[in-house]
Amino acid sequence: MMSKDLFSQWLGIERLEERVGYCKLRMTVRPEMCNGFGIAHGGISFSFADSALAFASNSHGRHAVSIEISISHISPIKIGDVLIAIAEEKSLGNRIAIYEVRVEKPSGELVALFKGTVFRKETTWNV
Amino acid sequence: MMSKDLFSQWLGIERLEERVGYCKLRMTVRPEMCNGFGIAHGGISFSFADSALAFASNSHGRHAVSIEISISHISPIKIGDVLIAIAEEKSLGNRIAIYEVRVEKPSGELVALFKGTVFRKETTWNV
Amino acid sequence: MMSKDLFSQWLGIERLEERVGYCKLRMTVRPEMCNGFGIAHGGISFSFADSALAFASNSHGRHAVSIEISISHISPIKIGDVLIAIAEEKSLGNRIAIYEVRVEKPSGELVALFKGTVFRKETTWNV
Amino acid sequence: MMSKDLFSQWLGIERLEERVGYCKLRMTVRPEMCNGFGIAHGGISFSFADSALAFASNSHGRHAVSIEISISHISPIKIGDVLIAIAEEKSLGNRIAIYEVRVEKPSGELVALFKGTVFRKETTWNV
Repeated sequence: MMSKDLFSQWLGIERLEERVGYCKLRMTVRPEMCNGFGIAHGGISFSFADSALAFASNSHGRHAVSIEISISHISPIKIGDVLIAIAEEKSLGNRIAIYEVRVEKPSGELVALFKGTVFRKETTWNV
Repeated sequence: MMSKDLFSQWLGIERLEERVGYCKLRMTVRPEMCNGFGIAHGGISFSFADSALAFASNSHGRHAVSIEISISHISPIKIGDVLIAIAEEKSLGNRIAIYEVRVEKPSGELVALFKGTVFRKETTWNV
Repeated sequence: MMSKDLFSQWLGIERLEERVGYCKLRMTVRPEMCNGFGIAHGGISFSFADSALAFASNSHGRHAVSIEISISHISPIKIGDVLIAIAEEKSLGNRIAIYEVRVEKPSGELVALFKGTVFRKETTWNV
Repeated sequence: MMSKDLFSQWLGIERLEERVGYCKLRMTVRPEMCNGFGIAHGGISFSFADSALAFASNSHGRHAVSIEISISHISPIKIGDVLIAIAEEKSLGNRIAIYEVRVEKPSGELVALFKGTVFRKETTWNV
């Protein structure tokens, strides 16, 4: 997925770890990701977490599309900050699955908490 | 805000209409905003709506920071699609305010529905 | 649905208006619905809105089950308050539908804003 | 709080464990909590989790009021089911705190996942 995902590439996302239902990603905040307050636009931590959701939820081989997501912004993210996203599967049903993504500083400090619900299609990645 | 907001500029956001507690924005989806499925990354419609939230919630002159947001993805967004975001104030308290942002096609078709809760600081834009 | 829904009956819900994808309900807050602060427990406005969601989303004849819901609590609700819930369909897909429910005082003051996403089963009410 | 909270009493909530920022509760689903499908009304698991949120978020001694909550319904809850709610603090700021509440069967099976954001007032419980 990552090789064709131009926006994840623009974000500069690196994949640290991936297994079924889980992934861990890293990125660094650049000036062009920031808003008028000198801090990262709210869309940056969301987009980063959303990539983690996509990788984790599609890891079972079936297409998964996100239907409803919430994000809590906990502390401001600044230019140069390194961010880690950790996506974990909380529930896996036939049609619906739920993931939590923690966006952290390398110190483990939580900066955003993301919950995503996906719809699992019947189509698979290798068909 | 917009003149210093490099990420909103990267998104190509144009401001169609703004008044207190309200704004209407437009953007066009470019190839570098898309994911591996050939459709816009979920972070694009979120980021676009989040800019609308920022403009509308800061329009009262006090700093507003988003604390909790949810987004429903309704239909896929493709390269070349023109998107309109319409932010409306649903509730304005002294500390907490709530906004709904509709992300639509120019035809009025709803493609994403966003709800944002902001914390209103005591500091103002002109101090 | 209402005739078999003992909890909606406990809440004292009255149906004011119903059509496909829409309903309007009324209830009155009683002492046994309140928490230690002398105000209605957060579960009361949620439950009331959730009944409105169930009625509106099942009105098409197919079984609809809620999968993800958010509620914003805007102002406290007290013993004796009359509440109105207005459920409106925001999006109707084959599998997923989205509803907004406004919980208001009779004056039209918004006290809670609720967004519900449902999964639409293939089974129907009359089979 | 519990001694004055008539609705938590109606739910039959028992307190299994409480410490600062955490609590664990138990309840049993009764017929009058169920909807027309013969399963617990969506408001029941929400209300149960919301009581856990209130106990955990007020455990620091300052008044905390919930402003925005989301709940994912994962599997149906039936008459006679015993439910456990486990509230954990995910983030504690001066004004805003975030809690996750897991609603489980005694086997540990997750039946609902709840995320609550509270506003922390300056007033305390002992004034």
